[in-house]
Amino acid sequence: MPVYEVLTTQGTLDAEKRSALAAEITKVHTEETGSPAAFVQVVFPELPAGHSYTAGAEATPHIIRGQIRAGRAPSVRHAIITRLFDFYAELTGASRMSILVAVLDVPAQWAMEAGYILPEPTEAEEAAWFARLDAAQA
Amino acid sequence: MPVYEVLTTQGTLDAEKRSALAAEITKVHTEETGSPAAFVQVVFPELPAGHSYTAGAEATPHIIRGQIRAGRAPSVRHAIITRLFDFYAELTGASRMSILVAVLDVPAQWAMEAGYILPEPTEAEEAAWFARLDAAQA
Amino acid sequence: MPVYEVLTTQGTLDAEKRSALAAEITKVHTEETGSPAAFVQVVFPELPAGHSYTAGAEATPHIIRGQIRAGRAPSVRHAIITRLFDFYAELTGASRMSILVAVLDVPAQWAMEAGYILPEPTEAEEAAWFARLDAAQA
Repeated sequence: MPVYEVLTTQGTLDAEKRSALAAEITKVHTEETGSPAAFVQVVFPELPAGHSYTAGAEATPHIIRGQIRAGRAPSVRHAIITRLFDFYAELTGASRMSILVAVLDVPAQWAMEAGYILPEPTEAEEAAWFARLDAAQA
Repeated sequence: MPVYEVLTTQGTLDAEKRSALAAEITKVHTEETGSPAAFVQVVFPELPAGHSYTAGAEATPHIIRGQIRAGRAPSVRHAIITRLFDFYAELTGASRMSILVAVLDVPAQWAMEAGYILPEPTEAEEAAWFARLDAAQA
Repeated sequence: MPVYEVLTTQGTLDAEKRSALAAEITKVHTEETGSPAAFVQVVFPELPAGHSYTAGAEATPHIIRGQIRAGRAPSVRHAIITRLFDFYAELTGASRMSILVAVLDVPAQWAMEAGYILPEPTEAEEAAWFARLDAAQA
């Protein structure tokens, strides 16, 4: 966690744009939350043409949805949403009307990585979690 | 928002059926919630054959999941779910045992469209939001 | 419900591994929750190579996300997460650092299967729900 999904129509994002988005999403998430980058996942599922509709008509919406650990301050969430929205619009030139960014909560206790239930999103809990992971790998 | 995902196996829905579903989902959502159609997204991800299982056996389930703004009355949610279920079964002839419809909540404050954090799902908040959008585009 | 999604990169899971995962996920879910297997869905969406990033670099993460009915005990959720994590790592040989398992809640009242809003996840409610379904099909 987090997992950010950028859902577009095939042909929207080439490898260079995907790479730029992955770098920026990772940067924004770590800067705004203070959490490490190690487990920031960014995935780019694509739909074939003719498989997306807006207001009942065929369209090419850009749907960015992040699942982050619950407990972030509203200001953190808003900063993530705003920065991702603006970066995506700038990078792709997509109409701002066609972009959706949402950042959803998953309780830390509901997820496991590296074999351990996730820590709460605080500096102390994360430090303890990584220390435990390091010790197990030593 | 909302985003409705209709997840099926390749070959289940042709362009005509996708179009009919997108139209109906948009109609049902706007009728039941009173919200405008402008931002209703309907997407049709597909799985290759052999990539879905029900009860441990290969199957072709039909999984319709909507993400809507939190705060809708239970009666609104139930009406959406029931109408989408019945329409899908009728349109496709799929077994009712193989259809799942779920409608999930996303707090309005957790999402952005057109560059603005979403309004709460009330008439007054939505009117103010669209007025702000119109003013910005004027 | 539940719906378990196993998101990987194309080429990660062959038909045999998908089948083994579907069987095990179904087994774990029914054993830990006591609910019947009839509506356990397991789907395997895949991303093309170059469509996944971890920590900003191209990667091949393994992302397993379940949507289950809300109301399960934390111990049930933890048992599901731990068993799925360990089974997946063992079956695929994937690095434990690259695996994420999350189990998310959906209120029963927010979903419909077989034409009926789902029962709460208790033995009594489920028995009544299936009895109603049987009567309707008789």
